[in-house]
Amino acid sequence: MRVVIVGGGFGGLQAAHSLRDAAVEITLVDARNFHLFQPLAYQVATGALDPAEIAAPLRSIFRRQRNVHVLLAEVTEFDLARREVHVTPEAGVASHPELAYDALVVAAGSRYSYFGHDDWRAFAPELKSIEGAIDIRSRIFSAFEAAELETDAAKRRAALTFVVVGAGPTGVEMAGQIAELAHDTLREDFRNVDTRQARVLLVELADRVLTSFAPSLSAKGERALRDLGVTPLLRHTVVDVTGEQVVIEDDAGRREVVPTRTVIWAAGVTASPLAGELARAAGLDTDHAGRVTVEADLTLPGHPEVFAIGDMAQVRDLPLPGLAPVAMQQGRYVARVVRARADGDAAPGPFRYVDKGNLATIGRSKAVAEVKGLRLSGVVAWWTWLVVHLFYLIGFHNRLVVLVRWTFSFFTHGRSARLITRVEPRD
Amino acid sequence: MRVVIVGGGFGGLQAAHSLRDAAVEITLVDARNFHLFQPLAYQVATGALDPAEIAAPLRSIFRRQRNVHVLLAEVTEFDLARREVHVTPEAGVASHPELAYDALVVAAGSRYSYFGHDDWRAFAPELKSIEGAIDIRSRIFSAFEAAELETDAAKRRAALTFVVVGAGPTGVEMAGQIAELAHDTLREDFRNVDTRQARVLLVELADRVLTSFAPSLSAKGERALRDLGVTPLLRHTVVDVTGEQVVIEDDAGRREVVPTRTVIWAAGVTASPLAGELARAAGLDTDHAGRVTVEADLTLPGHPEVFAIGDMAQVRDLPLPGLAPVAMQQGRYVARVVRARADGDAAPGPFRYVDKGNLATIGRSKAVAEVKGLRLSGVVAWWTWLVVHLFYLIGFHNRLVVLVRWTFSFFTHGRSARLITRVEPRD
Repeated sequence: MRVVIVGGGFGGLQAAHSLRDAAVEITLVDARNFHLFQPLAYQVATGALDPAEIAAPLRSIFRRQRNVHVLLAEVTEFDLARREVHVTPEAGVASHPELAYDALVVAAGSRYSYFGHDDWRAFAPELKSIEGAIDIRSRIFSAFEAAELETDAAKRRAALTFVVVGAGPTGVEMAGQIAELAHDTLREDFRNVDTRQARVLLVELADRVLTSFAPSLSAKGERALRDLGVTPLLRHTVVDVTGEQVVIEDDAGRREVVPTRTVIWAAGVTASPLAGELARAAGLDTDHAGRVTVEADLTLPGHPEVFAIGDMAQVRDLPLPGLAPVAMQQGRYVARVVRARADGDAAPGPFRYVDKGNLATIGRSKAVAEVKGLRLSGVVAWWTWLVVHLFYLIGFHNRLVVLVRWTFSFFTHGRSARLITRVEPRD
Repeated sequence: MRVVIVGGGFGGLQAAHSLRDAAVEITLVDARNFHLFQPLAYQVATGALDPAEIAAPLRSIFRRQRNVHVLLAEVTEFDLARREVHVTPEAGVASHPELAYDALVVAAGSRYSYFGHDDWRAFAPELKSIEGAIDIRSRIFSAFEAAELETDAAKRRAALTFVVVGAGPTGVEMAGQIAELAHDTLREDFRNVDTRQARVLLVELADRVLTSFAPSLSAKGERALRDLGVTPLLRHTVVDVTGEQVVIEDDAGRREVVPTRTVIWAAGVTASPLAGELARAAGLDTDHAGRVTVEADLTLPGHPEVFAIGDMAQVRDLPLPGLAPVAMQQGRYVARVVRARADGDAAPGPFRYVDKGNLATIGRSKAVAEVKGLRLSGVVAWWTWLVVHLFYLIGFHNRLVVLVRWTFSFFTHGRSARLITRVEPRD
């Protein structure tokens, strides 16, 4: 049985891994040659970790799993009638192979929508790719360098203004880390500028931060952010972004122009364009977030051989958060279904999500967590966050290196991966 | 006393550091915000280490040394008559400060000359910058990916052909590491292609590799390279480079066209353009390698207040190798001279180079070393190389992380930093 898995994120990786003993031939297609541990991308963006520490080469992950073929290629088309996936290989290879499948698992993830203003992307990079994280890192540290050199007070103030759009876990983590950089890590590194004068604005449309958590934890998160020096702007939205300013609007329609050179985007999650591609191929519509809707067994309506999982899919009548554990559990579930079919066994019941909890870190020793109804905050939540993230990081190697880095950062308040490099943005 | 140091490499860093207790105000100017430990750049290029592990932010190096101001800027002009350095700040700051000095230390290093064909640079990146190393890394791993996908035998062969130009320590290290990748690390990672069929050609104009070492060590180095699967092409040179091939010529003028998509340049060292700038400002000529010639006390003829050190300078009547220890000793010497002047003490005698040895690694447990007349090879030389490089790496933090990575790589034969990313080349 030929299984094609599109996407080497949390969902695709779990699906492939869970089929390790199955009598199937797996082709794992991804445009990148590595799995990215996205929950830690903000640490790359703020100079705490280096890119390779949160990425693992797909080929080395599956080196010993001989039924997996990794294919570095971009998916261009799903031909559901002929059961083929069309791809364009990366690395400048001229051939355009068609991948025939008996089961197709599409797990292409999500990106940010920019509220329909794709032109903002150039000024406000997102944290979904490693290049985005490196780009943000260069912008943040360049901004402090500019502040050090600027003689004009207004320009210096603009250089020291950081705007993070979206107060979900990623936005909160970014805002908290930038504030820590300004108030702690970089404080003694500059001679002319007082980095503690930096303003970190966290713009959020809702009336609280971390809306996926209980209101009491949102309140604690907000307090922790304020303690760090972040200014949450709740019930605000961004209506324009350029290289020199953002325009922010409150819920009464009042606008404010904020001069800044550093805007980080973490709002308005939308499914990968492949969700739309897949929906079109099946004659279906996508939802408001660009997602394809799947049945209770995660298959495409009318196509029991096609699965869509993770951030790009919505399960009919089962609202789920856009979290790594959801994608991972769906990946394992799909593997069980595929294996049952390969073995001629009865199909398992519908997919069920086991909520193992929700975590967000804000800064040094500050985090919030909901685990099995338990609401944690402060140091306990922070340690939980640390252990969980280290545990899920792929590769013992990376885990150890990250542990060393975190231990040092904790005691020295330092960040050693503060390189300003030039990258060509991807996507 | 105002001291301006241009360049945060080995020489500039030592000069600034050695002036830590002196009654001077130091401005350290560099276009990059980090010190790069160049001797390990080839490990980034081959996926063994991550960029930040061999780079340390200049600001954190000098955080506690309050007499150092780090300035992120490009030097545009030396005005020796007015004793000013003109700079253009990085980070898009509009001002163009002039830095007045009482002592100027220029330590801008070197790059590769491409034998006068600067257009080859786009096809054959060099290892002198972090972006170059990341670019090479992407090219090498993309080439293996292309080989995996190519159905055309000739194209597959071209994808598996790697050409390294120049058999000095950097070229030898690169060639050895690529061969190790092909024959060991990546062997089990691909399903279609046998990576052991890779050809690694090491092109060298001289009649032996590692010409800075004794001939007996060159012979041992060459044998080690051959054992790893590298083909040294001695008495050969490159006469053309495109994105699809290189043309190699032997000493009898016979040419061979080698189809390849991966060429790495490590030949023909030439001084930084700032050497020419400085020479022009003083009305002097540069030598064949673009270097400015300095007196026995490392000052510019006619300008006792201007020093030039490291790869960009040649000391009159004192031929020195282009090695980090030379630049470091010169940095320390210049600091002594400057301090003597600041304190009104007698000037120290002329600069003398203390040869502490010469090291080059070729692969796992394979290296050559010359230390105080002692010639070492094999495992002993390799351990020496390891300890010396770990010791000189800046930041205890980086040392520990690199130690963890090396230990793992040694036992697992793995390389975890194999990211194919897109970078915009710098320089």
